Amino acid sequence: MTEFAPTDRNRVRRLPARARYDAETIYPIIDEALICHVGFVADGQPFVIPTIHARMGDTIVLHGAKASRLLKHAATGEPLCITCTIVDGLVLARSVFHHSMNYRSAVVFGRGRLAESEAEKWAALEAITEHVMPGRWADARLPNELEMNATSVVLVEIEEATAKVRSGPPGDEEEDYALPIWAGVLPSQIEFGAPVDDPKLGEGIGVPGYINTKERRGI
Amino acid sequence: MTEFAPTDRNRVRRLPARARYDAETIYPIIDEALICHVGFVADGQPFVIPTIHARMGDTIVLHGAKASRLLKHAATGEPLCITCTIVDGLVLARSVFHHSMNYRSAVVFGRGRLAESEAEKWAALEAITEHVMPGRWADARLPNELEMNATSVVLVEIEEATAKVRSGPPGDEEEDYALPIWAGVLPSQIEFGAPVDDPKLGEGIGVPGYINTKERRGI
Repeated sequence: MTEFAPTDRNRVRRLPARARYDAETIYPIIDEALICHVGFVADGQPFVIPTIHARMGDTIVLHGAKASRLLKHAATGEPLCITCTIVDGLVLARSVFHHSMNYRSAVVFGRGRLAESEAEKWAALEAITEHVMPGRWADARLPNELEMNATSVVLVEIEEATAKVRSGPPGDEEEDYALPIWAGVLPSQIEFGAPVDDPKLGEGIGVPGYINTKERRGI
Repeated sequence: MTEFAPTDRNRVRRLPARARYDAETIYPIIDEALICHVGFVADGQPFVIPTIHARMGDTIVLHGAKASRLLKHAATGEPLCITCTIVDGLVLARSVFHHSMNYRSAVVFGRGRLAESEAEKWAALEAITEHVMPGRWADARLPNELEMNATSVVLVEIEEATAKVRSGPPGDEEEDYALPIWAGVLPSQIEFGAPVDDPKLGEGIGVPGYINTKERRGI
């Protein structure tokens, strides 16, 4: 399995015990996150834009309209930072100081390039669609030439990456455990509700089996 | 109410109909988001780091260990971008091309500075604690001198900001509405589960009323 050796760029300074540099930890976080936040620099100014993504092997794929600032910048080959974060709970310690969150975050460094061929673009769009909703690609109307031409796909090979993971109960100062203050974790997760039909849905078209809130979350 | 006039930096290029520049739209997104993603530039490299935040008026406050790379960079006064994103649902169109998400995102531009006084720092820590869990500040053991000294607080005045909001059903091409493909929205939200006691919790200490999954979400 890929191991991303800590460098000056991806090494975790704070609470290094929470840091992981192996793809076995990092990739499932990227895969589980519904969206990522892409950071790029334009004229010295950082921009952080949320977008849908997918991972194909050691590459993260992004897509968007050709006119999108994010896609244009991502395609330049300038350095990017792509971060995926999953919040698993609020950690409520006895002391304000030790409050925290349980979370899994993956920070990826790389440079983008436009998809080179239609086949590469097509595979990326399939991966992105399946990332958001497994089973959808086989069911939906696939992109036509006009739509393909209006879409940019950027591939970002993962040069370096780090995960940071916190789990478990709060850690308080020894003398604080005697305080009469409740402490523990309030777990959090993304919940999907019942599917809402498009008001323009034709009669007799039911919700397909793959759009299932439990399956979506891989439970 | 504050209006952040569109500039070259914060103007939304893609789907400008989804863009909002008024604090009345932007601030509730910042307030509802559990975390933000902070972007900064170091040696030309963008970094995107998730962290807890709070808003105090027209300022976003961040905190962390004095040794934190994020806090050190945020305090330099170099340009930052702070993005809060809430995913409200998956938008499943008949065509792959029109798939989307329902979301509310706020992108804020500003520059950080260290809290100037203990009072300012104290107020920021209270705001951050109350942002994550309203009611907790009055209950938890407050920071002592040692903890205050170990903590950095950075204030980022909001110079410019944009929100981008999508809601509602998918929008398909006219000719696709006749296709026998289910379309609609799969709503998503953060759900908080039942509080989990710290295994070291003293006997007879119950979960306080303010740690209530429904109240937490403001429902």
